Amino acid sequence: MGKGRLEAFSDGVIAIIITIMVLELKVPHDATWEALRHLAPVFLSYVLSFVYVGIYWNNHHHMLHAAKSVNGAILWANLFLLFWLSLVPFVTAWMGENHFAQLPVIAYGVVMIMSGIAYSILSKLLIKHHGENSVLAAAVGSDTKGKASVGIYAAAVAVTFVHPWIAVGMYFVVACVWFIPDRRIERKMKQEGRG
Amino acid sequence: MGKGRLEAFSDGVIAIIITIMVLELKVPHDATWEALRHLAPVFLSYVLSFVYVGIYWNNHHHMLHAAKSVNGAILWANLFLLFWLSLVPFVTAWMGENHFAQLPVIAYGVVMIMSGIAYSILSKLLIKHHGENSVLAAAVGSDTKGKASVGIYAAAVAVTFVHPWIAVGMYFVVACVWFIPDRRIERKMKQEGRG
Amino acid sequence: MGKGRLEAFSDGVIAIIITIMVLELKVPHDATWEALRHLAPVFLSYVLSFVYVGIYWNNHHHMLHAAKSVNGAILWANLFLLFWLSLVPFVTAWMGENHFAQLPVIAYGVVMIMSGIAYSILSKLLIKHHGENSVLAAAVGSDTKGKASVGIYAAAVAVTFVHPWIAVGMYFVVACVWFIPDRRIERKMKQEGRG
Amino acid sequence: MGKGRLEAFSDGVIAIIITIMVLELKVPHDATWEALRHLAPVFLSYVLSFVYVGIYWNNHHHMLHAAKSVNGAILWANLFLLFWLSLVPFVTAWMGENHFAQLPVIAYGVVMIMSGIAYSILSKLLIKHHGENSVLAAAVGSDTKGKASVGIYAAAVAVTFVHPWIAVGMYFVVACVWFIPDRRIERKMKQEGRG
Repeated sequence: MGKGRLEAFSDGVIAIIITIMVLELKVPHDATWEALRHLAPVFLSYVLSFVYVGIYWNNHHHMLHAAKSVNGAILWANLFLLFWLSLVPFVTAWMGENHFAQLPVIAYGVVMIMSGIAYSILSKLLIKHHGENSVLAAAVGSDTKGKASVGIYAAAVAVTFVHPWIAVGMYFVVACVWFIPDRRIERKMKQEGRG
Repeated sequence: MGKGRLEAFSDGVIAIIITIMVLELKVPHDATWEALRHLAPVFLSYVLSFVYVGIYWNNHHHMLHAAKSVNGAILWANLFLLFWLSLVPFVTAWMGENHFAQLPVIAYGVVMIMSGIAYSILSKLLIKHHGENSVLAAAVGSDTKGKASVGIYAAAVAVTFVHPWIAVGMYFVVACVWFIPDRRIERKMKQEGRG
Repeated sequence: MGKGRLEAFSDGVIAIIITIMVLELKVPHDATWEALRHLAPVFLSYVLSFVYVGIYWNNHHHMLHAAKSVNGAILWANLFLLFWLSLVPFVTAWMGENHFAQLPVIAYGVVMIMSGIAYSILSKLLIKHHGENSVLAAAVGSDTKGKASVGIYAAAVAVTFVHPWIAVGMYFVVACVWFIPDRRIERKMKQEGRG
Repeated sequence: MGKGRLEAFSDGVIAIIITIMVLELKVPHDATWEALRHLAPVFLSYVLSFVYVGIYWNNHHHMLHAAKSVNGAILWANLFLLFWLSLVPFVTAWMGENHFAQLPVIAYGVVMIMSGIAYSILSKLLIKHHGENSVLAAAVGSDTKGKASVGIYAAAVAVTFVHPWIAVGMYFVVACVWFIPDRRIERKMKQEGRG
């Protein structure tokens, strides 16, 4: 089965997720700095999630680029990932509007953990489908960064019991680390002459 | 007429349907478990519909993959299907917000029945267009699962008069059955060497 | 300049327009027939607009299918069409929520007239770009149906001063006439062996 | 790395941005001219932003059309541009609903400045990736119009302290100047025989 429509559908869903988040940036009724300042946490929360969803799109793009075909299980694993990403606008808005209170920060972490796990399942199924010696398998590698991220999200959830803002800081750090695009796959493919 | 733009447009509409449903998951004003618990039925309702729309996208993807071209009648049958699917976010939210009361559960069933019928019309037109001996015709087959689903939805609508929650259970059962992707078409195409 | 991205962008915008209209179908708080009945005019209005936007997508699809390339002026004419179509969700909701009162029915007619004119400009520019003897020119033809539709919309706007419901009836009639897909282009292309 | 999915994703996000802006055109409860007149500034604001986002799509389309491939940095520069464009619906609505008061007009200008800078970064990275002697580099040229626009936006922000409406007038003037599509790239490509 071709991968074209899977890419197109995922692009569509991720494009919508990243864009509808801005709808939660409710237009204030007053034209004052005060009104704008009230939006600051929601805006910060929006920036964080925009970067995260951007990272997912980026990595998804890279991984699928190395894929040659997909099967039924991969379609479902992809939908499972999109499901968790679709909850990002909700937890983003909830966290922002409650000024990074503990429970929404936990909810944000849980969505991040589940998205990370879903991405990991998707990559495992893709590797299984292409074989352990494929370009894709070599390129995805041991995915240490992915596993570490899920670990940090889990730690961040625990840390909210100390102070939720530390957890938010941890989310930002992980985002920064991922911000550096995944050069592993690009490099690997260049070596194989498919880049 | 090529099928490319039909696939692209359907992908777009289905991607939007599946994503805007999350907008009905209204962000609570409080950062409490209580607030989150109140959302539980809306969330459950969202999960059910995400799976259903995912199934439709999946099956639509498989069926169109086997198609070679489309005609005007197929374009309209496809729009008819998209029309009923476009009502899914509405009935999902209505059902969730009213904690699975009878009337919204009936409305959900009606939308499911009509979507099932629309999908069936679309597949019939595609078979007619490609011929009874085509890969597509053989792959779609007698569509027993599709017909049975519409029957179960109709039964579920009747069952709401006993208790709407039994009907919701039936919707979940049908979703689980469909969750197993449609291997018939994949297998058939592999045999014909087009997979 | 290739036509691929123009088609993709138009598909995206039209897919979003057709889908966000359903967001105006506000989820009622009660699970009663009464609540559902209140939605009837909004729903009717939604059905009308879904058919209209579907028709535009369909015809746009057919016309661009016959096109070989586009230029800057065509890009802008296309955006002009999308602008007027983007107002359809607004006039649809306004008309529905005010139970087909005069002013919203006029507004609906104006958006229809402008969309019709915009489509006509787009087709003229496409014909000019491809030449008077092109497949596209022959296929689009004199566009009597398009011109007549704009005339009927204008008449409907005038008729609202008698009773707005007659105008709504006229909108439905035009929709039904267009519902029959545009076989002219399909036929013409088949003759030229490009179908 | 291919440019196909970057184009598709950007098309998706821009299509959504341009379309969800219309959601801020809140449907009035009354069917009166009075209600419609109240919407006039929001509508004017919508028209301005529709043209701006249309211009960005247009120029993005032209520039990427001349591109042959992309890299990780370009993906991120593109996301940076999309981030600022995603704020357009917010500032558009805020400006319109507050009848072009000073602060929202400044905010609009800031988003315009940042979008202009982001576009400039994207074009610089694309030129660097394709080489100073590439079609793309020659076509983008010195980008005087782009630099001048950012300058005028900055001036407009300053002018809001005199009267915000003058600034809005300046935004309209810049939009009109850009309305003339970017013939430089088209011409250049025609010369190189790739158009």
